[in-house]
Amino acid sequence: MSLDATPTPGSVRVGVAVPAAGTGRRMGGVRKPFLDLAGEPVLAHALRGLLADPRVTEVVVALGPDEAADPPAWLARLDARVRVLEGGATRAESVRRAISGLGSVDLIVVHDAARPFVPREVLSRCIEVAASGEGAVAGTLAVDTMKTVGSGGLVRSTPDRGSLWHAQTPQAFPADVLRRAYEGDLSEATDDASLVERLGIPVRMVEGDAWSLKVTRPIDLLIAEALLRAARRELP
Amino acid sequence: MSLDATPTPGSVRVGVAVPAAGTGRRMGGVRKPFLDLAGEPVLAHALRGLLADPRVTEVVVALGPDEAADPPAWLARLDARVRVLEGGATRAESVRRAISGLGSVDLIVVHDAARPFVPREVLSRCIEVAASGEGAVAGTLAVDTMKTVGSGGLVRSTPDRGSLWHAQTPQAFPADVLRRAYEGDLSEATDDASLVERLGIPVRMVEGDAWSLKVTRPIDLLIAEALLRAARRELP
Repeated sequence: MSLDATPTPGSVRVGVAVPAAGTGRRMGGVRKPFLDLAGEPVLAHALRGLLADPRVTEVVVALGPDEAADPPAWLARLDARVRVLEGGATRAESVRRAISGLGSVDLIVVHDAARPFVPREVLSRCIEVAASGEGAVAGTLAVDTMKTVGSGGLVRSTPDRGSLWHAQTPQAFPADVLRRAYEGDLSEATDDASLVERLGIPVRMVEGDAWSLKVTRPIDLLIAEALLRAARRELP
Repeated sequence: MSLDATPTPGSVRVGVAVPAAGTGRRMGGVRKPFLDLAGEPVLAHALRGLLADPRVTEVVVALGPDEAADPPAWLARLDARVRVLEGGATRAESVRRAISGLGSVDLIVVHDAARPFVPREVLSRCIEVAASGEGAVAGTLAVDTMKTVGSGGLVRSTPDRGSLWHAQTPQAFPADVLRRAYEGDLSEATDDASLVERLGIPVRMVEGDAWSLKVTRPIDLLIAEALLRAARRELP
């Protein structure tokens, strides 16, 4: 493999795609990325975490039509590396547009706008895995016993917990791989890695942490605030 | 089926087994059920939630050897329905002993000592399912995409998220069914329901809620405190 195909960590250019156009049905129509978390929008926390890695050369945020036409002031002045464009009707369509909006990058990181915390080490490790030519997914081992449940709520099976992981973001991929993955059918895209898996490209799980919660329900904002307070007290 | 085999909700006697003998390895040796949560031990919150259902006639708590020999004062004076005994080296062994310690009950509920919140409706629904002769597991639909991960951290597959549930407690069963389930090999008992599933008895998933968290890591106590504060403000 040539040096062009496998950039060294020192020279690698990383683009980030942030889908933030969702309509927030589970939050009663509230747009999750714009909820206030300790004085700042959830999305601002996420972007600052992503921008902290110096290998990140571009961030494209896919917004809803209204916000794309008139982005909030804080977003416009956050960092010169950040641009916005109009997302699509689904998460996958928003990622596809954000990817198209990225310039010449070697690797692409995808990160959910509703995940305010981006642990530095986790992002770094994802980038390193992607630089080796594989896909990377941040995740955590399942804590609970999981069940597959059939119709009528009957339990069908108890899969081995030791091999089941929660997939979070960031997820990172060689840019050409992710672009190819997004050329296919997006109707079953539950996450970016699943599209890359479908191409037969190896995807590696990178151990994330419990901090990487997704703000999905109103209660998650309270949890996120508790986590922030804990971080300031440097709790494990 | 006779009335004896299927007690009506009005007359049903429910025994509760609470395994609380774990050594707390993930908490650095701290015994999770005895951690302070808003001024009371986690276990006290859990027991009060269980005792709120009037069909509960007995609760047996399996404690570590030291605590079983000299139970904390708050536990001794909590409620006349509560008794303690010495648990075993594993969760399954503690549940087995607690079940043996329960008297003549129609149904048995098992609840993790480290789950401080027992939503009233969820416990009630579990009891009703068990009264119909099936097993019941409180749980929530997986929010994250899940991955099965093989050796070396490589992702093997992305199971259909729509059928994957987190199993929590309470779990409830006809007493004779659970006692039979615990006569078998306990080495692969990740939860009580899996032992009952192995007998071929139908087990039904009962929709729990996000409040039913398990205090597993130090951060979970902060989350639990945030949830308690939210409950007092009656947040959804």
